[in-house]
Amino acid sequence: MDSLLDYLRQRRAEHLNWAIELCRIPSVSTRPEHGEDVRAAVVWMRDLCRRIGLRAELYETGGHPLVYAEHCQRAEGPTYLVYGHVDVQPVGDLSLWEADPFEPVVKDGRLIARGAADDKGQVLVHVRAVAAWLATEQRLPVNVKFLIEAEEEISSPHLVPFIEQHRDLLRCDHIIISDTGMYADGWPTITCGTRGLLYKEIRVHGPKHDLHSGSFGGTVANPANVLAALIAGLHDQAGRVNLPGFYDDVAELTEAERQQIRALPLDDHEYATGVGSPSVTGELGYSTNERRWVRPTLDVNGIYGGFMAEGANTIIPRSAGAKISMRLVPNQSAARLSALFDQTIRQRCPHTVRLEILDHGRADAYLAPLDSAPMQAARRALREAFGREPALVREGGSLPILPMFKQLLGADSLMLGFAGPLCNAHGPNENVTLDDLDRGAEAVARLLAYLAG
Amino acid sequence: MDSLLDYLRQRRAEHLNWAIELCRIPSVSTRPEHGEDVRAAVVWMRDLCRRIGLRAELYETGGHPLVYAEHCQRAEGPTYLVYGHVDVQPVGDLSLWEADPFEPVVKDGRLIARGAADDKGQVLVHVRAVAAWLATEQRLPVNVKFLIEAEEEISSPHLVPFIEQHRDLLRCDHIIISDTGMYADGWPTITCGTRGLLYKEIRVHGPKHDLHSGSFGGTVANPANVLAALIAGLHDQAGRVNLPGFYDDVAELTEAERQQIRALPLDDHEYATGVGSPSVTGELGYSTNERRWVRPTLDVNGIYGGFMAEGANTIIPRSAGAKISMRLVPNQSAARLSALFDQTIRQRCPHTVRLEILDHGRADAYLAPLDSAPMQAARRALREAFGREPALVREGGSLPILPMFKQLLGADSLMLGFAGPLCNAHGPNENVTLDDLDRGAEAVARLLAYLAG
Repeated sequence: MDSLLDYLRQRRAEHLNWAIELCRIPSVSTRPEHGEDVRAAVVWMRDLCRRIGLRAELYETGGHPLVYAEHCQRAEGPTYLVYGHVDVQPVGDLSLWEADPFEPVVKDGRLIARGAADDKGQVLVHVRAVAAWLATEQRLPVNVKFLIEAEEEISSPHLVPFIEQHRDLLRCDHIIISDTGMYADGWPTITCGTRGLLYKEIRVHGPKHDLHSGSFGGTVANPANVLAALIAGLHDQAGRVNLPGFYDDVAELTEAERQQIRALPLDDHEYATGVGSPSVTGELGYSTNERRWVRPTLDVNGIYGGFMAEGANTIIPRSAGAKISMRLVPNQSAARLSALFDQTIRQRCPHTVRLEILDHGRADAYLAPLDSAPMQAARRALREAFGREPALVREGGSLPILPMFKQLLGADSLMLGFAGPLCNAHGPNENVTLDDLDRGAEAVARLLAYLAG
Repeated sequence: MDSLLDYLRQRRAEHLNWAIELCRIPSVSTRPEHGEDVRAAVVWMRDLCRRIGLRAELYETGGHPLVYAEHCQRAEGPTYLVYGHVDVQPVGDLSLWEADPFEPVVKDGRLIARGAADDKGQVLVHVRAVAAWLATEQRLPVNVKFLIEAEEEISSPHLVPFIEQHRDLLRCDHIIISDTGMYADGWPTITCGTRGLLYKEIRVHGPKHDLHSGSFGGTVANPANVLAALIAGLHDQAGRVNLPGFYDDVAELTEAERQQIRALPLDDHEYATGVGSPSVTGELGYSTNERRWVRPTLDVNGIYGGFMAEGANTIIPRSAGAKISMRLVPNQSAARLSALFDQTIRQRCPHTVRLEILDHGRADAYLAPLDSAPMQAARRALREAFGREPALVREGGSLPILPMFKQLLGADSLMLGFAGPLCNAHGPNENVTLDDLDRGAEAVARLLAYLAG
């Protein structure tokens, strides 16, 4: 292990150069004009994988291509699949960036560039660790496969078909992903679960055109008022989602998990100030971290209807609508709750209007097995590399790939994050600290050893 | 009276020509490019008034000019002020018109043109009656003043200052207005009251920018959800406005008025079908006509916030807002209820968001004295001219000039409508039946006699 770590320390400048080279490629998958750049990033990654000694191929998907690479010389296994992506978000308002988003700079110990944190820098952590093993030991202690796609930022439209067509190639015992965050800079973090998503849109239709609110006000149902009542009815006084049966399958926290979460420092006042809200709030009886990680919730994402411009117009709107999404937790079923939501809203909606419900997608929550061997190995590796007990957190957002991997490959996922809370992924001046990347590479190098058992 | 009526009947073609000439002038006050046309309509009206024997002057107002005309030879009074307007709404989508909106045509007994009903045709009803009196009797049985403005369709911005500066000139015992509708074609109609208006906008502000609804959902107040709850709280289960004290000053209908309103035919199913709503609804215990005429109500006129485009976006919106207007009835005070609304909403709004309340204007309701001598005279005149007992109705919309006249001139208003329910004022193919105009002129000729007592 010492020679491995020495190797990683000696190659820090070279490995930083990998990140700089990759971040220079403007692989914005959301913009058609960057199609060739996205391909270039995939090609670059394939070539790097080959250079360090992996068998690597570029695969066409019908959209942006992806890279599959592997080093599988342990017939007895186990096999780990590293998932990541080399496509990035648009840069947004250039005036908010300190420098060209695609001309990476190192400043105050941070690499600043689009993709530095999400996800180029984090993918390379794994490549560095594997390179160190191959350079110093000529083989890996476990079988490792890489699946690096380039459509993550556009919801991975070709990932499921690819996996379905390549189940044998991708067969593995566990998945490792580094595309999440750290609870604090320098604090190694394992994300143990994510929330699911159920996204609906309800539209309430009333008169066939906008009506004069003087001549008609009080005689026919106003779609915007009906909509507001439907939305208001979706929460009770305790801040709980008011759909009968909504909480039936919610996995309650074990006391151990609850203690673990409560041990993580969080100042509610700072949290609220950070987002600009007057205070935190939410479901009674739960802390802020519990509310955002392990409790289901319901939010209006958008609402519209009638006269929305400046000033006044005295109409009864012909229709009004709202986009409403729920975050689900283990073991809620998005499919079951989708039907429940529709049925409940239909029951509650008065017959004085016409109701329309649209679906905008859904995903189940995911919870990693907390006592698995890979989880224990990762905790040890992170503790040793960072000199600190890793934080075990959850993520309030949704990662549909996690239940998808579980379903298609039968494998659970281990999420090791190396991007701190100030990394500004998707925003201006995206960055990552070099120290977290370096320690991350050391942690993964150790992890590979511990995974061998 | 016979000679008067003979005169009116003999001059029908000539008087129709007046309407055609006036409707040819595209006096669209809402469009700056029609400024000269609006002035031309005012000049035309002044000249007609002079031609029939009135003293008439054009007055500059700072905006579009107006006409004041009078025939006041009865020192002992009484004096009646006829208010009307010669400006019109834009024509809208020309393809929906059967003919050029400013090239009036007569078809199936109707005059079709922009302004035919609102209000050129109706103003001329009064001019015709006065002309008949002056031509046959050389004097009027009462003093008559005309105040014909050209900014009614842009909310009469210079009317109040003009009246304040010319109180002596405009001094009168009663005001007569023909700018309302008939309950049915051929059914003479007196509008006895209008509802008031209180227009608010509430904005709920949460985080300083849109938040990821996964990462933050459940921990901070969602402005759109808070807004929906505030709106939902503004009605109770009986369809009443849920503001404490809101109904304190509401004038309840007398049994006689209630009977009068209930006697007017109205098919709820036809009414709902007409506007395209599945059914009528509203405050429990009241009929549709009562709900739209004599009961206060509250409607969302517009609602907005967060992601309003097609598709899905998982955000907690930074803010959400709604335009909310109330229709008030006698004797509710718009000023008092404005304060009540603000106070109640502020009390109900949780401290987890910031609240902003904007004012978009207000007007008090108006109710004409139902037993006044002019009201009795008008009922008799209309009954005789149309051969049918006039309908006594109210208007759900607001006419701020009515309480304004009452306040500035101390005079009540009598609203005689000669435009049927199919007149399509403000819409395409605006029209009025020649028969209603002819009978209207006869009714006003009679009315002038009866007003003399």
